[in-house]
Amino acid sequence: MKIGIVGYGNLGKAIEESLIHTKESEGIAVFTRRDTSEVSTHGAKVYSLSKIYEFRGKLDCLLISVGSSGNFSDFAVKLAENFNTVDSFDSHSKIKEHLNLMNLAAKRGGKLSVVSAGWDPGIFSLFRNLMRAVMPRSEISSFWGRGISQGHSEAIRRIPGVKYAVQYTVPKSFAKEAALGGEKIENTRASHVRECFVVADESARSFIEREIKNIPEYFKGYETTVNFISEEEFFLYHNSKHHKGEVIAFQKNEAGNRALARLILELDSNPRFTASVMLAYARAVKRLSKEGRTGAFSVLDIPVNYLFDNDEECFPLI
Amino acid sequence: MKIGIVGYGNLGKAIEESLIHTKESEGIAVFTRRDTSEVSTHGAKVYSLSKIYEFRGKLDCLLISVGSSGNFSDFAVKLAENFNTVDSFDSHSKIKEHLNLMNLAAKRGGKLSVVSAGWDPGIFSLFRNLMRAVMPRSEISSFWGRGISQGHSEAIRRIPGVKYAVQYTVPKSFAKEAALGGEKIENTRASHVRECFVVADESARSFIEREIKNIPEYFKGYETTVNFISEEEFFLYHNSKHHKGEVIAFQKNEAGNRALARLILELDSNPRFTASVMLAYARAVKRLSKEGRTGAFSVLDIPVNYLFDNDEECFPLI
Repeated sequence: MKIGIVGYGNLGKAIEESLIHTKESEGIAVFTRRDTSEVSTHGAKVYSLSKIYEFRGKLDCLLISVGSSGNFSDFAVKLAENFNTVDSFDSHSKIKEHLNLMNLAAKRGGKLSVVSAGWDPGIFSLFRNLMRAVMPRSEISSFWGRGISQGHSEAIRRIPGVKYAVQYTVPKSFAKEAALGGEKIENTRASHVRECFVVADESARSFIEREIKNIPEYFKGYETTVNFISEEEFFLYHNSKHHKGEVIAFQKNEAGNRALARLILELDSNPRFTASVMLAYARAVKRLSKEGRTGAFSVLDIPVNYLFDNDEECFPLI
Repeated sequence: MKIGIVGYGNLGKAIEESLIHTKESEGIAVFTRRDTSEVSTHGAKVYSLSKIYEFRGKLDCLLISVGSSGNFSDFAVKLAENFNTVDSFDSHSKIKEHLNLMNLAAKRGGKLSVVSAGWDPGIFSLFRNLMRAVMPRSEISSFWGRGISQGHSEAIRRIPGVKYAVQYTVPKSFAKEAALGGEKIENTRASHVRECFVVADESARSFIEREIKNIPEYFKGYETTVNFISEEEFFLYHNSKHHKGEVIAFQKNEAGNRALARLILELDSNPRFTASVMLAYARAVKRLSKEGRTGAFSVLDIPVNYLFDNDEECFPLI
């Protein structure tokens, strides 16, 4: 497969790193909005994003690894009309709209896109829906952290005046205990705290704090604390990419029988795992487009065996 | 959907119980090898298995809920040629062969079958392969118990002279700890113990113990203990259907980053959960056959959204 990587931040770098030791690593093309001379990769060739359409027909799949805040869908839709794509768009409430827009674009161009293929949304979405299907009338809750959310950190970094920033998502332990006991967790805003650590000039701080707390979807309505720290402290204590999460499904049927299912994920490197999920779905893109399929797919539309080069690989572990 | 249930043991009963409060409960037909006058259901009509072919074209899906030991595939293949089916065949090493046989039969009859759709094989198979796809070069191990294996208990009950029997699968805790630390677990025989509790006449006991320990796939090669107990003790302490299990996937990449994924399942009623999984895949059978598809499918061939009556139902929880 000839892979293109759009955006060379933490996720773009992680995709390249994941590919280095595979047969797909030849001819990876990185596309960036930055000055290409400022971007140094592990070997992938770097091109200006403005030149991407010259690659039409020359790449098997574009992995879109720019952040989801801002006008992600507008940006991705143009790519989807011209290339097969995989993204890990993570604004949960907008996924359906994003999927519809990408579907129209991909159909128009005779291409195929997979949307929101990360760990959440992505692997967790698959698990939540699988459990909902096999555990009717169950309570399903999701918890993230304590760990660093790439999407939330990125959203903070887009605020003018922010030099460095990191956001820890912290689940409230009483909420997780309640979920394990079968209680309904009304919403993630009540069950999580958001802790931000930001490096910024003194003068910009009150503006930045206000801006952070008002970012819709990402922070608005959450219990959010903003801590301003020095650059030294930032690199000493907050220069990590770890994250974790858990999905809990609890069912009690009319006979009083309980069923409990938990998916627990612990990641030293959140971007590396997301990259790996995107690459698995890039294999699915290849297989689905070989079958002549077009349009946009979510992880719920794709059988697990399409994540392998061929079905045979599933069998030792069925 | 008009559902037929083949076999009315623990699993067949659990399928009927799961259906009772749904719109599918009308017209459930139970097929049994036993004298129909001896089988009392919660309302489903009971027919002799010998009459099942009179129901051709009258049922949307047959759920095959007879035990997997013996000549399961031979039995199921005949049904697959005449009906859409779902089974939870659980002899892991024979699943591929079973899938192939069922595929030929279903194709011959223009029907559709889903095989091995329980919790393991089934949900656990899906998870193991999903994790293998998104965590390349990971170690993936499975642990079952401490809990009652329906398949193993059933296999014991087929031995002449056995009155009642139950088998607890017990994971070795050091093996689970090792898996969580990233070690390769060579095989399930080394990481589990099988504890059997059997009610039988004194005279048959040494024969039964020998027979149990030699059942291929199920017991041979396992550390197995056989305890003979009284009928009173059996119903006092061993009349339960609980089980649990865990899949652990551990990956360490070239940069030393670890990723750990765990799926933990705890069930008060193993048959009720298996029934629920089979019914979810019966919905998939309906959707796939509506599309004109035929042949046999494993859970790895079916997208998660096919487990719902329509795709729209997935979206609140993506």
